[in-house]
Amino acid sequence: MKLSYEDFELGRRFTLGPRTVTAAEIIEFAREFDPQPMHVDEAAGRASILGGLAASGWHTSALFMRMMADSFLVDSFSQGAPGVDFMEWRKPVLASDTLSGHSTVVETRALRSKPGIGMVKFRHEVENQKNELVCVSENSIMFVMREVLEKTA
Amino acid sequence: MKLSYEDFELGRRFTLGPRTVTAAEIIEFAREFDPQPMHVDEAAGRASILGGLAASGWHTSALFMRMMADSFLVDSFSQGAPGVDFMEWRKPVLASDTLSGHSTVVETRALRSKPGIGMVKFRHEVENQKNELVCVSENSIMFVMREVLEKTA
Repeated sequence: MKLSYEDFELGRRFTLGPRTVTAAEIIEFAREFDPQPMHVDEAAGRASILGGLAASGWHTSALFMRMMADSFLVDSFSQGAPGVDFMEWRKPVLASDTLSGHSTVVETRALRSKPGIGMVKFRHEVENQKNELVCVSENSIMFVMREVLEKTA
Repeated sequence: MKLSYEDFELGRRFTLGPRTVTAAEIIEFAREFDPQPMHVDEAAGRASILGGLAASGWHTSALFMRMMADSFLVDSFSQGAPGVDFMEWRKPVLASDTLSGHSTVVETRALRSKPGIGMVKFRHEVENQKNELVCVSENSIMFVMREVLEKTA
């Protein structure tokens, strides 16, 4: 059964990944969205403070989004998100790194402005194969409530 | 001349875009990173609270990143960013929307932990062709200081 607002109980935790990031992917994303030298060129990456060919932070975020979609979002009555409270790129994500993590429900509330929709706040943590946190974020996502789905069923 | 830390004076404003977003791009990005129905299917988008085939918020963010790269980052001594303070996706970005905006320097400081590198905080505002803000964000980016560049020149 697809997840509705009520399924996101406080403390519920969803597993993200694993997902390995290749050098080719890093360069392809960066060429399109973030063509800074350390994201498109191996030697420039090594010479930078990132220490190697490193994914754009936005690429890391997009990969985290995909892991979240596969973990629980596509199989839910999600209505999208109004934004991101914060996003920390704590360590560079380098070519061949394997990412995994989890999203934990930290707050839930019914939306007064949108009856039948509830907002779920998550804390997301993504780490690399050395168990170093590479990305930490919190954001809220809107989900349809079960009562609405039952009425329209 | 490429921009170094000292060039990011308080209040300096950089123009972003314009950049038109196509339906094909929205679907391509979403299939790879955010395959929720409203981002990959026209009818599902119209049926959702987004009101049409809508770009993933992460796609909007990646497009904003590209506009920033083209505006000033690629032509600078950027050393990357430690994250995003916040990112608000205020309005859906729909197929055929044209985005533009600006990044304004709101804070600068030398990094004690990384001598020769300074942190510049920006406020970013992106709007659509109707002058509606679609994306508002603040984040800090690291830049090499001119004194370092002169020493190594």
